[in-house]
Parts: sequence; C-alpha cells; structure tokens
Amino acid sequence: MEFDHVGIATRDAGALADLFDDLFVAPIAHEERFDGMRVVFLELSGGGYLELLEPGDGGPVADFLDRSGPGIHHVALGTEDVAAALDRARSLGVELIDEEPRPGAWGHDVAFLHPRSTGGVLVEFVERTDGQ
Amino acid sequence: MEFDHVGIATRDAGALADLFDDLFVAPIAHEERFDGMRVVFLELSGGGYLELLEPGDGGPVADFLDRSGPGIHHVALGTEDVAAALDRARSLGVELIDEEPRPGAWGHDVAFLHPRSTGGVLVEFVERTDGQ
Repeated sequence: MEFDHVGIATRDAGALADLFDDLFVAPIAHEERFDGMRVVFLELSGGGYLELLEPGDGGPVADFLDRSGPGIHHVALGTEDVAAALDRARSLGVELIDEEPRPGAWGHDVAFLHPRSTGGVLVEFVERTDGQ
Repeated sequence: MEFDHVGIATRDAGALADLFDDLFVAPIAHEERFDGMRVVFLELSGGGYLELLEPGDGGPVADFLDRSGPGIHHVALGTEDVAAALDRARSLGVELIDEEPRPGAWGHDVAFLHPRSTGGVLVEFVERTDGQ
C-alpha cells in the first residue's frame, strides 16, 4: 500500500493550514464539511496529504481532542480495493472499526482498523474512487 | 516538502513489522540500533516509510510509551535543506527542539520542531544525505 495522508485533529483548521503551508509548502488541495467536521487536505509535493480535522460539537474527533488534545489522529494508506484489504485484515485477526467500506471525505471509500490490533495506530484504508 | 515517514512508538518492533508487512505489504527496508532504540523502516509501495521505534530503558520515546502508550509518535517530511527549513520555521516563530540539523537514523540529517508550535504534531525534517 502507499501513503495517502496523516490525519490531524485540530480546533482551528484554518490557522493550521496557513502555518503548514508556510512551513512545508503544502497548499490546500481540497476542503469540505464532512460528518460534522471541517476537513482540509494539504498537498505534499511528492504526493500524499496532511488532512486537518476540525470537529464541531461531539463525534470521535471531538472526543479525541478532549482526551488527548490536538495532534496526529490517524495514518491513511491507499489501496485499490478496501474490501479486499479488510478481508486480509480480518484473516489476520485484526479488529475492524468498519466491517465494510463506507463513504469517506473527498468522496473516497474508506475503512478504519481498531488501534487495539495495530500497535496503538489508528489506520484508515482509502480507495480513491475517482482515481485521484 | 514531501512525505518521508510516520514514526511509531512500540514495545515490540519485530512483531509490529511482521503484522504491518502482512497487512500493508510494507517490507523492512532498513534496520539499526540508534540512540538506544531498535529502529525499523518499513517501505510503502509509492515511496515513504513507516518507522518503528522500540526504545530501551529511558529516553524520549520510552517516556512517550509510558505516558501515552504505543502509537503514532511523529511525522517526518523530507527536504533538500534542513538548515534552511529550520531558518524558515524560526522566522515564523515556531519553537524548535533542534536548533541545528543533527545526525538521525539511517545516516540522515534531521531536526525536530516542538509540537507546542505545530498544532500538537511532532514534526521531523529529514534530509536524505545519500540521496535515498
């Protein structure tokens, strides 16, 4: 699989996007409201993204912020077939958060693995349905 | 800048390397003892790495494990000039952990930014001195 993005929980995606563009030359590639959150993708020069997640009230990212403060939330790996990747994970005894692919930000199919099974790392599988 | 790696703190780099290779098809590209840690780089198919950090007794990664448990520790971005990247960060008022580039794992020049200044994200700049 290939690197897709690092997800970062923040209380101010606009300010962090400005800082990261200044620091890393990572301009905004896409922005949307998704699942009650402001989601901003910053594009890295060699491919891949930093995904800023600014939740509204409630939800898992708001809970993460309350519990751990802002910072790295998950790592996302790209695959051509999330369903097959989930089957593989299941066969290895990995606990899944999403048993089936579901629509994620930017219109992609995604699924999360439970960090209990993956060394404390929240892993997202991403299938870029538009070939991006 | 481009994605270089995600650093992951673990108490068992061998077991996690095996699992991640099975799950993500990410074979070991490099392994060494560095700064009292076992450090394992797993190569992703499109470029970039997952870096597993298994500390011995003491040190910042051992402290991280004691405080937060295993999981994502930092994100590393590649640049052709770490010193220039640090100057840029300094000019933006970002607090630095390393005021100058220093030798990191795999023989590269590295420097860390303080997460207080970067939205809670521990950021490493990496300059691959051998052009890898």
